Amino acid sequence: MDLPAPVYKPPFNITRSSHLVSRVSDLEASRAFYCDLLGLVVSDEDKKRGEPSVERVGMRVLTEQDLDLVQAHFAAAGFPTEWVEVEHQNRTLHTTDPAGTPLEFCATMETRERLFAHADRYHGACALRLDHFQIVTPKVRESLDFYTGMGFRLSEYVVAKGSLEMVFLQRKGNPHDIVFANRTGPRLHHCAYQVPETHHLMHVCDLFVVGDKEGQVEFGPARHFSPGLARFLSLRDPDGHRVELFPSHYHTIDIEDEPVEWEAPAFKVGGWIVPPDRWWNDTMAFTDSQR
Amino acid sequence: MDLPAPVYKPPFNITRSSHLVSRVSDLEASRAFYCDLLGLVVSDEDKKRGEPSVERVGMRVLTEQDLDLVQAHFAAAGFPTEWVEVEHQNRTLHTTDPAGTPLEFCATMETRERLFAHADRYHGACALRLDHFQIVTPKVRESLDFYTGMGFRLSEYVVAKGSLEMVFLQRKGNPHDIVFANRTGPRLHHCAYQVPETHHLMHVCDLFVVGDKEGQVEFGPARHFSPGLARFLSLRDPDGHRVELFPSHYHTIDIEDEPVEWEAPAFKVGGWIVPPDRWWNDTMAFTDSQR
Amino acid sequence: MDLPAPVYKPPFNITRSSHLVSRVSDLEASRAFYCDLLGLVVSDEDKKRGEPSVERVGMRVLTEQDLDLVQAHFAAAGFPTEWVEVEHQNRTLHTTDPAGTPLEFCATMETRERLFAHADRYHGACALRLDHFQIVTPKVRESLDFYTGMGFRLSEYVVAKGSLEMVFLQRKGNPHDIVFANRTGPRLHHCAYQVPETHHLMHVCDLFVVGDKEGQVEFGPARHFSPGLARFLSLRDPDGHRVELFPSHYHTIDIEDEPVEWEAPAFKVGGWIVPPDRWWNDTMAFTDSQR
Amino acid sequence: MDLPAPVYKPPFNITRSSHLVSRVSDLEASRAFYCDLLGLVVSDEDKKRGEPSVERVGMRVLTEQDLDLVQAHFAAAGFPTEWVEVEHQNRTLHTTDPAGTPLEFCATMETRERLFAHADRYHGACALRLDHFQIVTPKVRESLDFYTGMGFRLSEYVVAKGSLEMVFLQRKGNPHDIVFANRTGPRLHHCAYQVPETHHLMHVCDLFVVGDKEGQVEFGPARHFSPGLARFLSLRDPDGHRVELFPSHYHTIDIEDEPVEWEAPAFKVGGWIVPPDRWWNDTMAFTDSQR
Repeated sequence: MDLPAPVYKPPFNITRSSHLVSRVSDLEASRAFYCDLLGLVVSDEDKKRGEPSVERVGMRVLTEQDLDLVQAHFAAAGFPTEWVEVEHQNRTLHTTDPAGTPLEFCATMETRERLFAHADRYHGACALRLDHFQIVTPKVRESLDFYTGMGFRLSEYVVAKGSLEMVFLQRKGNPHDIVFANRTGPRLHHCAYQVPETHHLMHVCDLFVVGDKEGQVEFGPARHFSPGLARFLSLRDPDGHRVELFPSHYHTIDIEDEPVEWEAPAFKVGGWIVPPDRWWNDTMAFTDSQR
Repeated sequence: MDLPAPVYKPPFNITRSSHLVSRVSDLEASRAFYCDLLGLVVSDEDKKRGEPSVERVGMRVLTEQDLDLVQAHFAAAGFPTEWVEVEHQNRTLHTTDPAGTPLEFCATMETRERLFAHADRYHGACALRLDHFQIVTPKVRESLDFYTGMGFRLSEYVVAKGSLEMVFLQRKGNPHDIVFANRTGPRLHHCAYQVPETHHLMHVCDLFVVGDKEGQVEFGPARHFSPGLARFLSLRDPDGHRVELFPSHYHTIDIEDEPVEWEAPAFKVGGWIVPPDRWWNDTMAFTDSQR
Repeated sequence: MDLPAPVYKPPFNITRSSHLVSRVSDLEASRAFYCDLLGLVVSDEDKKRGEPSVERVGMRVLTEQDLDLVQAHFAAAGFPTEWVEVEHQNRTLHTTDPAGTPLEFCATMETRERLFAHADRYHGACALRLDHFQIVTPKVRESLDFYTGMGFRLSEYVVAKGSLEMVFLQRKGNPHDIVFANRTGPRLHHCAYQVPETHHLMHVCDLFVVGDKEGQVEFGPARHFSPGLARFLSLRDPDGHRVELFPSHYHTIDIEDEPVEWEAPAFKVGGWIVPPDRWWNDTMAFTDSQR
Repeated sequence: MDLPAPVYKPPFNITRSSHLVSRVSDLEASRAFYCDLLGLVVSDEDKKRGEPSVERVGMRVLTEQDLDLVQAHFAAAGFPTEWVEVEHQNRTLHTTDPAGTPLEFCATMETRERLFAHADRYHGACALRLDHFQIVTPKVRESLDFYTGMGFRLSEYVVAKGSLEMVFLQRKGNPHDIVFANRTGPRLHHCAYQVPETHHLMHVCDLFVVGDKEGQVEFGPARHFSPGLARFLSLRDPDGHRVELFPSHYHTIDIEDEPVEWEAPAFKVGGWIVPPDRWWNDTMAFTDSQR
């Protein structure tokens, strides 16, 4: 596979995938899912709600200066850019990538109390932080080229009959901040949160069943043997947004960490479980997108 | 449901389900499964092999005197009994229960080194001991009555349209030594081994995939929310014998621990996973049985 | 070591160690410890409190008839017996063993909702059930003989210079319902609760520190390599009562499970940690006892 | 505390702490410790051995160009720099930091097969990768200033009576690549490896005891509540080199992640366990150092 050359000194520093802006139809149901079961906390709330969709995929840059450079980069590439006001965030940039993914960048947000040490407030799956997104799009190659140009590194990829099926792109030193998979899109396949350990995956499944919500557990706990190698649990929130939980991952930092190639269909995406059709086929539209 | 009265002072002491006598077609493949993956050790071996089937379900009584009383009890109930020589075991009784399950009782076996403390020899799923059997048979009620008469206590049961679908019977203070489920039989649905903790279930699944044997993982890890409540992993050995691994269970010892009734189909036998059809339908014949 | 002959068919059936009656000085502090941190629930409460001490060690017999036989057995052995009224319990027998341990036997208690399946109510260390007691007394040999006579089986013992230092006695098929250790007494060294898995030991330690109560964590998590072999965590409640948590244990049921002998001081009671002096020396007086 | 301003766009990219060069007196004993117990694999070996000491602390830069810039930076700061030949590594730079720590930088090493996915080869503590070093030195402030100037970010620090006692410095997005603590030095306090989960800490302790090496377990498993917040296990290799194992850590990437200040002695470095004196006082000399 002819892969684009990595850019080791990109002109700006996108640090990580950091947040997701979603629309949900029932805030109480979402709170039960994300807070009571996943273990997140509410940092602000109002009464807005709407047709379920994904508004934006959020990423962080390190500094305000990086934000300006990102804006210039997207504008030079011909994508629309807009500075917007977003509550609790400093300057925020909206733009779009070659796949049509609606993106949001900022350098800083208001901070909240760090909860990592507060073992007494751990509950549910004890989700720690957002880790990555998976986008489905027919433009996998274009996405690879464009993100590589912004300093993202390719950690793993899947090839089928000579064409790219899936690319894992990362900035923060684990295998993925954003993943693109070849299907009609752009649509969001899932966002993923890290949880502390494997037993948290099993415990939250118990909680879903005890709450008569076992239908929200889609697939797992199992392991994505390829690509990715993480143990995972795939969930669906009350509006159908897919959320993946996974306990930890390998580091990939050194320059000699070459991208790992997998050949479909030999790869084992569910490990010992065959993924259900809905895991392959159900994805979430971006707001106002026709796809 | 009209249940038989428990017998709290049975005339003999059957202590536990203890062992299984199986026929397998390939000893090397079985060794890889039971030793390398499940974590058991070989205590003796020869070259015998045959058509895959289950010869006998094995139980222990406490004393040699109990063994004679068990023989008398089965004989009085009209079942054939036979004293047989079994290598590594003291006096051994072969008989049959109302379902047609071929049973083997003994009081003592030759002992081997205890391995519980040998953390350096733990490997694979680290299976600790055999825990229980599940038999499929249309004679669930007869089995309940007969085993209750021998001092087994009913811990949980499933009712469908007023008739018994499943009974959990125990002697050793956890929910089951033997389970009868209503289907054509007698055939063996599974035997189960206890493993130390939940993470061992996930680890052994990894091992199956790494060894390109993920087809031997049938169902799970998940939790039998009802009946039983144990986390479990359902495996198939190279000959198709089903083996369940589970990490621990509740105790049920006191006289006021009433049997728990579940109403089918509301019970959640796979927790958050719908059991695959093969888990319901595939069972193993007893040797020489026509069923 | 000359050990008493096991009694395999005792005239009555003591099933397990089941409960402890303690006096504490501050009910709110005790509730924080036992409920918020250990994970138990309150089933009844009043405002009684007193000087910290242990009133009684509680055991269950299977039937009301067993209770009468136990009374006759203790009376025949010359120990005072008394039938008492205890709230929430049926007929209750108070008596004393050769070590001077104040004992309480009953066959049944009022039941409460089973919580084992209620994963949503698990919290803290998720303690599941009381498992065993350890008594310190100079009368280790007398205790061994007397309990053996009641059908308790010796699972492990420690010998120092030819005399018994410690005996593990069991009825329920794991290594201990009651343990006697050679020191001035009778006093209670600890009672022990089973928790589901090892990670619960680590999690509850976090909770103690987060609550500025790390002084209540006395020793561990570690493993009693000998005798016993269980991973454990030793805690002290707000009144100094020692509570041990442990995640699981081996089964010992068969007649050929011979008692395991350990030779002091070679045994490794803290595994990789040297027990602190207070773990050896601090014990709790029984109410009204002069020792 | 007046802290140096972070450098968000350093002129070169040091990516992580990556390796340690140690001298040991008995290669077989070291292999037993690092391979059989910690879970590492040997990638090359010869028969060299010597007086136990630490030769060099190793770090990675991203590119060969970064390596030249690092050399220029140290030289301009007045530190000796030397290009050396090191087997299995590309161009390698030796230099010294303000504390006197002997450092080694390189951009690339020969790679070996990735083992992350090889669950069948996991053993012992299943150590995944080197994470960080702790150096003791009276020059904590100078070290903070110098490393900050190279783009390291301060994640946590301890203050006692107004002066810096401890600084945690990181490049890879978790709390530490290198830690400096105020004591006579420069000497190495420990290097740390990440393991997958908490249960691996408990399991490897079992292995040390089973192998009669419990003396090599120094402290833990416990949690460094402050600073750092990681669960850990502190070990000593056969030559006394201290190795810390820890299962995971928080991420710290965003610009608004301010350094966390702890005030000694209120901080809880052992969580619920008081660190043993040897953990505070025993450290390892650097080769040819007089301290």
